[in-house]
Amino acid sequence: MLALRVDKKRLSVRHIPIPSAETEALVRVTLSGICNTDLEIARGYAGFKGTIGHEFVGVVEECADASLVGKRVVGEINAGCGKCSLCLSGDPRHCPTRTVLGIVGRDGAHAEYLRLPRQNLFPVPAKVVDEYAVFTEPLSAACGILERVSIDKSDRVAVIGDGKLGLLCAQVVALTGAQSLLVGKHKDKLQIAERRGVETSTPKQATRLKRQFDVVVEASGAAPGFQLALDLLRPKGKLVLKSTFTGTTEIDAARIVVDEISIVGSRCGRFQPAIDLLSKGAINVNDLISEEYQLSKGVHAMRRAGTKGVLKVLLRP
Amino acid sequence: MLALRVDKKRLSVRHIPIPSAETEALVRVTLSGICNTDLEIARGYAGFKGTIGHEFVGVVEECADASLVGKRVVGEINAGCGKCSLCLSGDPRHCPTRTVLGIVGRDGAHAEYLRLPRQNLFPVPAKVVDEYAVFTEPLSAACGILERVSIDKSDRVAVIGDGKLGLLCAQVVALTGAQSLLVGKHKDKLQIAERRGVETSTPKQATRLKRQFDVVVEASGAAPGFQLALDLLRPKGKLVLKSTFTGTTEIDAARIVVDEISIVGSRCGRFQPAIDLLSKGAINVNDLISEEYQLSKGVHAMRRAGTKGVLKVLLRP
Repeated sequence: MLALRVDKKRLSVRHIPIPSAETEALVRVTLSGICNTDLEIARGYAGFKGTIGHEFVGVVEECADASLVGKRVVGEINAGCGKCSLCLSGDPRHCPTRTVLGIVGRDGAHAEYLRLPRQNLFPVPAKVVDEYAVFTEPLSAACGILERVSIDKSDRVAVIGDGKLGLLCAQVVALTGAQSLLVGKHKDKLQIAERRGVETSTPKQATRLKRQFDVVVEASGAAPGFQLALDLLRPKGKLVLKSTFTGTTEIDAARIVVDEISIVGSRCGRFQPAIDLLSKGAINVNDLISEEYQLSKGVHAMRRAGTKGVLKVLLRP
Repeated sequence: MLALRVDKKRLSVRHIPIPSAETEALVRVTLSGICNTDLEIARGYAGFKGTIGHEFVGVVEECADASLVGKRVVGEINAGCGKCSLCLSGDPRHCPTRTVLGIVGRDGAHAEYLRLPRQNLFPVPAKVVDEYAVFTEPLSAACGILERVSIDKSDRVAVIGDGKLGLLCAQVVALTGAQSLLVGKHKDKLQIAERRGVETSTPKQATRLKRQFDVVVEASGAAPGFQLALDLLRPKGKLVLKSTFTGTTEIDAARIVVDEISIVGSRCGRFQPAIDLLSKGAINVNDLISEEYQLSKGVHAMRRAGTKGVLKVLLRP
């Protein structure tokens, strides 16, 4: 089968054997999405070697649970050991020996086939088309904000960054009823959120709103975004750190102590809330799709995904 | 009266007028304590000019509330506007226009007299001697940890830093019943905590305990302490940032996101829990007292307080 592989920062589309399902399920991928984390991995983040990609929708071809065979599914990306206390409590996302689809020790989704444990797979409702279902993973990451901090209608929340993740986060936050602001530099991207009733501003305009926000979500993955997030927070406010970026960031420890700020890391969310939102048509993902390529053009597609102004790039095996 | 003053990084003990109580209370200081924040302020932190010092015990000389006159008191250091939503909710600690004793816009405690609003003052039980009561402010800051994170008996908690603040934090944490570890470099200081049943370790020994702690309190005020704190935390663990230090610190944002760490700033705590602990003799503060000087020797005392190995230095007006 074809697969988009990375090895020592070199990307290539190659023919490799179809994986053996063994005790897991074999999924034929029908569509996959390129995430910024894929771009980071291609630059060396996490030291991964193998097939990249962790956003997908596909059809189950083999599974010990016969009821799932032939079903259209999406899949949570963390596969735990199944034995540690975290796995036994039903949350393998922090299992210390977990593998992560296309990120840690497990071949990923930019391929014709992938394997995942049965419990990672979620059937997709018929009314959610593949082009939307492929957003389940990043949308669940956006929903994960609400697993880490509570947001209610009386809160004022800002999201920094108008990329793919920021646009999903802003829409999820707005659905809580909180007064929401998306801060970004790109008029066309901000308009996607505006069409869903989210207020928007440029970073420069936002600096007038210092110390006014209860919660700020940093989704730009850049140091100036982190600084702006701190500036916007009221004392005792919460900064949700949503973007992984390589390298270190400078923080003003005195500001965090004196104003008793909380910085809360947030990574993967659960899939079901995201599937429910897509099912209800509550999130605009359509406007986030920029381009689609055949998997065989994966290297070019990755380059496009890293190009300024381009949002989600999809790969079709 | 005599007062220990700072002006453009220059320290001096000078004669200045006794403050007028006006609508506040006038307190004759009987003992004050030098905090590391005093040393930071003398180096330029917070741009403060005036009488430094914010840890004290004294006797009320003038007050609109006659029942308080002649009483021995300690005092919370934040004085709010009394009108904003924070002040009206009974917590002026983050009032945006607050003054802070000896830190922001208000002369401090290393003086013969000071003034504070009546509601900032707390009577000291007779059995708590001045030498212990003067620890109320830093002990309340240690107790403030429990206002910011919940700690229970099943938690494993590490405190980084065996200075004055770290020794108080470790004792407060140990009283929760949680399995507690104090990490520091100084055998004699660590022994103070050991005598109260706290386990101790050197930073080097602690590196063997990576990812084992639910909560880590950073009280060393130094970048290596911050890094060790992150290393010791389990996924979804909480890092309580307790020390103000000037300048910026580098953080590994990817680690915070991937392991969903929370970094929680903590500054001032409420006074009553600290007074109750001192009243019960639950905290060893006696061993934290290194030296005592007359206020007139304040400049020398500040130099001593900044000397390696010296813990609390007290000033007697």
